[in-house]
Amino acid sequence: MTTYEKLSADPALTVSVKAMLRENADAVEAVLDTLYRCGGPCDAQLDEACRYSLMAGGKRVRPALTLEFCRLFGGTDEAALPFAAAVEMIHTFSLIHDDLPCMDDDDLRRGRPTNHKVFGEAVALLAGDGMALDAFRIAAGNTAVPADVRAQAAMLLSEAAGCAGMVRGQIMDMYGETHRLSLDELKLLQARKTGALIRVSAQLGVLAAGKSADGPEMAAAVSFAEKIGLAFQIVDDVLDVTATAEQMGKSVGSDAGHNKNTFLSFYTVEGALGEAARLTAEAVACIGDYPGSDRLCALAVYLAARDN
Amino acid sequence: MTTYEKLSADPALTVSVKAMLRENADAVEAVLDTLYRCGGPCDAQLDEACRYSLMAGGKRVRPALTLEFCRLFGGTDEAALPFAAAVEMIHTFSLIHDDLPCMDDDDLRRGRPTNHKVFGEAVALLAGDGMALDAFRIAAGNTAVPADVRAQAAMLLSEAAGCAGMVRGQIMDMYGETHRLSLDELKLLQARKTGALIRVSAQLGVLAAGKSADGPEMAAAVSFAEKIGLAFQIVDDVLDVTATAEQMGKSVGSDAGHNKNTFLSFYTVEGALGEAARLTAEAVACIGDYPGSDRLCALAVYLAARDN
Repeated sequence: MTTYEKLSADPALTVSVKAMLRENADAVEAVLDTLYRCGGPCDAQLDEACRYSLMAGGKRVRPALTLEFCRLFGGTDEAALPFAAAVEMIHTFSLIHDDLPCMDDDDLRRGRPTNHKVFGEAVALLAGDGMALDAFRIAAGNTAVPADVRAQAAMLLSEAAGCAGMVRGQIMDMYGETHRLSLDELKLLQARKTGALIRVSAQLGVLAAGKSADGPEMAAAVSFAEKIGLAFQIVDDVLDVTATAEQMGKSVGSDAGHNKNTFLSFYTVEGALGEAARLTAEAVACIGDYPGSDRLCALAVYLAARDN
Repeated sequence: MTTYEKLSADPALTVSVKAMLRENADAVEAVLDTLYRCGGPCDAQLDEACRYSLMAGGKRVRPALTLEFCRLFGGTDEAALPFAAAVEMIHTFSLIHDDLPCMDDDDLRRGRPTNHKVFGEAVALLAGDGMALDAFRIAAGNTAVPADVRAQAAMLLSEAAGCAGMVRGQIMDMYGETHRLSLDELKLLQARKTGALIRVSAQLGVLAAGKSADGPEMAAAVSFAEKIGLAFQIVDDVLDVTATAEQMGKSVGSDAGHNKNTFLSFYTVEGALGEAARLTAEAVACIGDYPGSDRLCALAVYLAARDN
C-alpha cells in the first residue's frame, strides 16, 4: 500500500486534517488580527474593509502550507508566521479584486456579502491594493530570518502574485471567456492563477526553515505544491457544478455563467476527480520520504477529496 | 544670498533641471522598457496595458530623486536604478487605479486616454495590480546592493505605498469629498497620498548609496523629501485651478468637481505659492551643506515654480 492509498483509506483523515488546518489558521489569524487597527476618524473604513475580508475565515490552506513546510524542514513557527500572513494577505486581496463588478461581479464570498457590496467599489479597490502592498512589509520585515531570506521571500512572493504569476493567470482567464483554450493552455492558466500562490506558500515555508532556494527540499516542496495546486483547481471546477452555494460559501455555477474554460471541458466529473487523485498521489510521493511529511500528505489527500 | 535665493534667481535653472530630469528619465526608462515583453497569445494585452502607462512619459520626478540621492551620497547608478524603477512602477499603478471609474473616473492622463479607456476596466485593474506587485520583485531583486538593503527597501516601499501610506491617503481623500478637513488633516492626507512615495524615493536612493537607515544622510533626505512633497502638492492644487488641460496633460478643475479638499481652501493662490516657496527654501537648507547637492536643490526650486 502506498502512503497515498493508506491515507485515502483512513477514516479519521478528515478529522485530523481539519484539526491541523484549524490550528494553523488560529496561529496565522493571531498575526492577521494585529493588523489594520490604526485608523483615525477619517480613515477607519480602510481598516474595517481590510479586516472584513482578512478575518472572514476560509480554510487558510496557503498559510498552512507555509507553516507545515517550515516545520517539516526543522524551522520555527516564529520564522514562518510572517510569511504565512503575507501569502494570506495576497490571497485575500486577490479575492476582493476578483469579486469587483468589473471582474467576476460576485455578491457572495465565504458566506457573506463581498467586500464591495459592504464598503463600495472604491474602498474595496483600495483595501485590496493596500493589502497586496502591505504583504511585502510583513514578508520583508520578518526579523526571525536572515536578511537574504527576507529579500528572497519578497522576490518570490512578487513573482508569484504579479504579472509573472497570478495576475497573468487572471488575464488568461478573461481571455478564455471569449476563446476556447487547449488543455495545456488551461493548465498554464491555472498554474499561474491559483498555482503560483500555492507554490510560493510552500516555498516560503522552506525558506523560513533556512533551506536553500536550490536545494532538494525546495525542489520537493515545489513539485508537491505544483501538483496539489493543479488538483485543487480541478476539484474546484468540479465543485462549481456539483456543490451548493451553501457548501461553498460563494456563488456556484459561475464558471459556466461567465463562459469560463474549466477542466470539465476536457474531463467528465469522474475523470476529473480521477486526475486530481492521480496528481495527489504524485504529490505525496514527492515528499513522502521526509520524516514528518504525513501531515502535509494528509492535507493533500483531504484537499483532493474535499466537498467545499 | 541663500542657496534657495541664488537658485530662484538663476535664469538657466529651468533648462538645467529639465536636462537633468531627461537624463534620469532616460536611465530609468531603459530599465522599465525591458519589462512586460513576455506575453503569449492569450495574455499579450496585460503587457500592452502595463507598457501603455509605464512608458507614457511624465517628469519621472520620483526615480530622479532615487538616482540623485544615491549619487549625492556616493552610490552608483547601478545600485539605484532598480529602486528607481520600482518607485515609478508604484506611482504608475496608483495613477491607473486613481483614474478608474469607481475612483476619479478620469478620461485623460499625460495627454492620452486613461488606461481603462483603452484596455477596459478589468485589464486596467489587473495591470495596476500586477505593476504594484512587480515593483517588489524589482526592488527586492536588486543584486547590486547587499541583501539587508534589498529587504529594507522592499519594506520601506511597502510602508510608503500600502495602508500605512499612499492607500490610506486615498481613503482620506475620498472621506474629504463629503467632509471638511482641517489644514492639519489635509497635510496628513497629502503626506500619505503623495508625500509617502516621494519620501521613499529619496530614502531608497540613500539606501542604495550604502548609507544607514538611521544616519544623518537619511534624516536629511527625509526632511528634504517631506518638504518638497508638501510643496509639490500645494503647487498641484494651484495648477488644478490656474493651468489648462493642455499644459497638464490631464483633466483640470477636477478637484473642485469632486468637491476635494485642497490647499486653496486655506490659502489664496498667492499665499499657496508663498508657502510652497517657504517649504522649498527649508528643503534646500536640509541638504545644502552636502557637496553636490546643487542638482537636488535646483530640482526642488524647479518643482515649486513649475507650470505643469
